[in-house]
Amino acid sequence: MSGKGGVGKSTVAANLAFALSIKGKSVGLLDCDIHGPSIPKLLGIENAPPEASQAGIQPIMVPPSLKVMSMAFLLPSTDSPVIWRGPVKMKVLKDFLGQVRWGELDYLIIDLPPGTGDEPLSIGQLLPHSDGAVIVTTPQDVALLSVRKSITFAKTLNMTVIGIIENMSGFICPHCSQEIPIFGSGGGEKTAKELGLAFLGKLPLDAAIVESGDEGKPFVFFQKETATAQAFFDIVNRIVDEIEKKHEQLRRR
Amino acid sequence: MSGKGGVGKSTVAANLAFALSIKGKSVGLLDCDIHGPSIPKLLGIENAPPEASQAGIQPIMVPPSLKVMSMAFLLPSTDSPVIWRGPVKMKVLKDFLGQVRWGELDYLIIDLPPGTGDEPLSIGQLLPHSDGAVIVTTPQDVALLSVRKSITFAKTLNMTVIGIIENMSGFICPHCSQEIPIFGSGGGEKTAKELGLAFLGKLPLDAAIVESGDEGKPFVFFQKETATAQAFFDIVNRIVDEIEKKHEQLRRR
Repeated sequence: MSGKGGVGKSTVAANLAFALSIKGKSVGLLDCDIHGPSIPKLLGIENAPPEASQAGIQPIMVPPSLKVMSMAFLLPSTDSPVIWRGPVKMKVLKDFLGQVRWGELDYLIIDLPPGTGDEPLSIGQLLPHSDGAVIVTTPQDVALLSVRKSITFAKTLNMTVIGIIENMSGFICPHCSQEIPIFGSGGGEKTAKELGLAFLGKLPLDAAIVESGDEGKPFVFFQKETATAQAFFDIVNRIVDEIEKKHEQLRRR
Repeated sequence: MSGKGGVGKSTVAANLAFALSIKGKSVGLLDCDIHGPSIPKLLGIENAPPEASQAGIQPIMVPPSLKVMSMAFLLPSTDSPVIWRGPVKMKVLKDFLGQVRWGELDYLIIDLPPGTGDEPLSIGQLLPHSDGAVIVTTPQDVALLSVRKSITFAKTLNMTVIGIIENMSGFICPHCSQEIPIFGSGGGEKTAKELGLAFLGKLPLDAAIVESGDEGKPFVFFQKETATAQAFFDIVNRIVDEIEKKHEQLRRR
């Protein structure tokens, strides 16, 4: 989750789910951005209609073992907006959790829309025992402001915060190789420290990531040799470690 | 408005309002992003508490003639999230329009949160005779996807679309001066043409804009000699022209 839009939540969610799936885990990816679902576009599965039967809705399968559900699959066209108020959205999110045939999963990754309104509130209430929230931010002050809101939100709902990812952290000019901090750099790490939270890692602002999203080819697979993908794998490992640490603590109690 | 978050809606809204105010107009700026209000931060008026009396809420005055209202003014701290569902938000937006002492205005600029949910829907219904919506986008496909949703949304609500602004369009490396299309370039203009809408102009991805926002110093005033500010003034003039064209047509009827 994140308080601010456009920080890379969906890109992180799609690549996190894909990376776990490559590691051999059974993974579900639920796109809870009802108004602006972008997960199907990022995974190149925009034109995949999910099948519904009496047994429930079948999620879209992405090899090797990723199951995806999104509002985008249910719209007549990509131009169609979802002009809904909160209560209707709450109902759909409930169905996405309860009526979709997820089967046995190791991980369910949920991509939330920005803010602290109906969607994150519904998910927090419907899944009180989730492993927690990964907060994505960019380094500029305006974004960090909303990180603090997201963290207070998580606390209010008794939701664990797994940690913070700093996205769009610095930019390397492809022509002269100099680093340029367009949105600043280091703000996410500083905020994590201030709030006593795990810092999960940084991802650079990278035109190749934008392109991979537009082409529907997750960079953790299609550009796996790049420094950006390597940085992302480190983040995935840290997330898994944090979750296992939490489970270990729960077992000891 | 825009379907996607993080495309620069608030930066555009704040600088548009400020630019009109510099031109001698009486301008109101209403921040309708209840969960992630950033207008006060962008204008450097975060610590200004609005006064409320029986006559209504007094908006915050920014010289020369800008009146600002935002949820941020009403929160106990910048860390406080607003954990509200739709119906409560609808009530607050109604008060922001009806209970705030805007006085006589030439323009009321409204900054909407991303998407097509409660806030844009409420504003569309509460202000059926607005001059219309300015759509802000970035050039990558994922953003353009949501532009089309916003436009269908506007049509559904009988709201005029004034035109499209393409933000973060190309980046000039400060070291080697080469242009790098991080988020692509030209996608906003192409989409405007395809949909038969006015293209209002492009703004580059500019670290100076990010910094001006973090410092609360609108670039149309504090960096008015730069190419970016000049590009923005052209956009402001085009918006004013489009609105006047519309009024002219209404008068002739």
